[in-house]
Amino acid sequence: MLTGAQTWEFRSKPTIIGAATVVGPEEGDGPLSSSFDFIYDNLEIDEKTWEKAERKLLQHASSLALMHAGITKEQLQFFIGGDLMNQIISATFAARDIAAPYLGVFGACSTSMESLAIAAMIVDAGGAKYAMAGTASHNCTVEKQFRYPTEYGSQKPATAQYTITGSGCAVVSSSGTGPRITHATIGRIQDMGIKDPFNMGAAMAPAAADTIVTHFRDTGRGPEDYDLIVTGDLASVGHAIVKDVLSKDGLSMDKTEFNDCGLMIFDRDRQNFVMAGGSGCGCSAVVTYGHIMKKMRQRELNRVLVVATGALLSPLSYQQGESIPCIAHAVALEREAGSA
Amino acid sequence: MLTGAQTWEFRSKPTIIGAATVVGPEEGDGPLSSSFDFIYDNLEIDEKTWEKAERKLLQHASSLALMHAGITKEQLQFFIGGDLMNQIISATFAARDIAAPYLGVFGACSTSMESLAIAAMIVDAGGAKYAMAGTASHNCTVEKQFRYPTEYGSQKPATAQYTITGSGCAVVSSSGTGPRITHATIGRIQDMGIKDPFNMGAAMAPAAADTIVTHFRDTGRGPEDYDLIVTGDLASVGHAIVKDVLSKDGLSMDKTEFNDCGLMIFDRDRQNFVMAGGSGCGCSAVVTYGHIMKKMRQRELNRVLVVATGALLSPLSYQQGESIPCIAHAVALEREAGSA
Repeated sequence: MLTGAQTWEFRSKPTIIGAATVVGPEEGDGPLSSSFDFIYDNLEIDEKTWEKAERKLLQHASSLALMHAGITKEQLQFFIGGDLMNQIISATFAARDIAAPYLGVFGACSTSMESLAIAAMIVDAGGAKYAMAGTASHNCTVEKQFRYPTEYGSQKPATAQYTITGSGCAVVSSSGTGPRITHATIGRIQDMGIKDPFNMGAAMAPAAADTIVTHFRDTGRGPEDYDLIVTGDLASVGHAIVKDVLSKDGLSMDKTEFNDCGLMIFDRDRQNFVMAGGSGCGCSAVVTYGHIMKKMRQRELNRVLVVATGALLSPLSYQQGESIPCIAHAVALEREAGSA
Repeated sequence: MLTGAQTWEFRSKPTIIGAATVVGPEEGDGPLSSSFDFIYDNLEIDEKTWEKAERKLLQHASSLALMHAGITKEQLQFFIGGDLMNQIISATFAARDIAAPYLGVFGACSTSMESLAIAAMIVDAGGAKYAMAGTASHNCTVEKQFRYPTEYGSQKPATAQYTITGSGCAVVSSSGTGPRITHATIGRIQDMGIKDPFNMGAAMAPAAADTIVTHFRDTGRGPEDYDLIVTGDLASVGHAIVKDVLSKDGLSMDKTEFNDCGLMIFDRDRQNFVMAGGSGCGCSAVVTYGHIMKKMRQRELNRVLVVATGALLSPLSYQQGESIPCIAHAVALEREAGSA
């Protein structure tokens, strides 16, 4: 199954037989609005604390994903989930309700593709018929935990990103219809010494570039083999850097659509509070399981490479003067021939 | 590969070809002293912060494990690691040095067997020739993050456990000599409504019982098939409960040695500051990769089931009045016939 140094090729082509996305009001007001399954009209998600709100997003998305997959909770064999909260409590409490065997994972915003890669690995290896990957983030839990509570009204530089409120889940199976997962490239930590948590796009860009180059080297593929290559959430600053880095590596992305989930989810002109763009565990999850899967169903996209990026800092590592280690995991999706 | 509802049977029997353990002075003063590869004589681990100390334990154990496995960092294909720190920074910073593709995981103290199960899954599926699982904990990082800084000198009830200072890593390969990994049973969240973070043994006991019962049901095995069944770190309170729960389920553990890593690592009479016993991500890792592997090499143990338990709370979930969701993952180890 290993092809090249760090890429798994899934011979049985595990299939995303059902997925779901739920988002908050700001994401619901953005350009991808029509691709989400449910849009909450209040940032509190009808809950009393931000943490309960984030958990509810994941509970909601996971139950919708199971419904879309046409399976019951009892049929689900493994749930692989994570989030940005300390001790990934959102995923854990959601896993308590989902009640399936649970593997908690953490890759910051790369958790979306880390969990999907592990789900595909398990299904491809015959370790499950049904495995679900899922993640969530909430703007206010993250602001409170990593920076300042939103109510403080602290100002931010233009390089800062805006954590999205939303959750995306995908049920992977060894049979059924839907996008096939053909490859996963597991990233290495990249750390260029950047210490500014308000410029995570720049910190994460080298990790995205490294994983993209590695994916092409391992698979023998190139940009022209994909209709869309999308980075997780580098936003405006990081996405420009990764283009530049790839170009210096002799890799032109002109032959494909090259975009970023953090840029796609908001209209930065109209929604200018998002600064450089979106981020958060939920960002690449809702863009992939919402927008991208919709475009694949509509036959507008056939092959997509999702390169989810993660900035693996903690408030404490930052306060102790450490730089920001970053990672990116890539998953290749393919529309099955002839499918709707 | 799936056998029963939640157990993977690894047909190729991935092998632990090298492992290593490093511990702090208190663990080095305990009854398992002679089984550890390195004992630091100072709790600071010669570092300036507790967090750097914890990271160093993992860096040290991982480099020793690679040496014992006889492979270089460059040959290692995946590192699966986690710890108790917010955003698992110890594993992440260690992964930066290890430089292999990295999957961050979190299962609190069950992280040891969660990471080993995933490493075995990857190797068994042909997704790597070499994958390393590793975890670490430090008494002072955990006290500071989850409870109070040690310097406050706050008192604790007798049910409290003492987080161990140490790290254990294991290199899993598709060939070579060492204990074979035959099965992994992935646990479901169990939550009996316990909210007291000073009684985690009682909170985790139902998760351990559920995973043990499930393992036997899935594999058709019973206690008599193992020379040793060891729970992660239930310590005195939790281990008594799990025995009781299993007995009420009609499962007598009299036909095997049934012990607990949290009880084995300290001499509770002499080292009475550990209260109910040891805990922490590193606890089941150093007992398994140190003591148990030594006994397997010495042919004193042939088949062992390690059931690592995790209390998946966060300080914030506790403060918001939530109960403690718990989980346990079991990995079955077998001495290869005729091996030393």
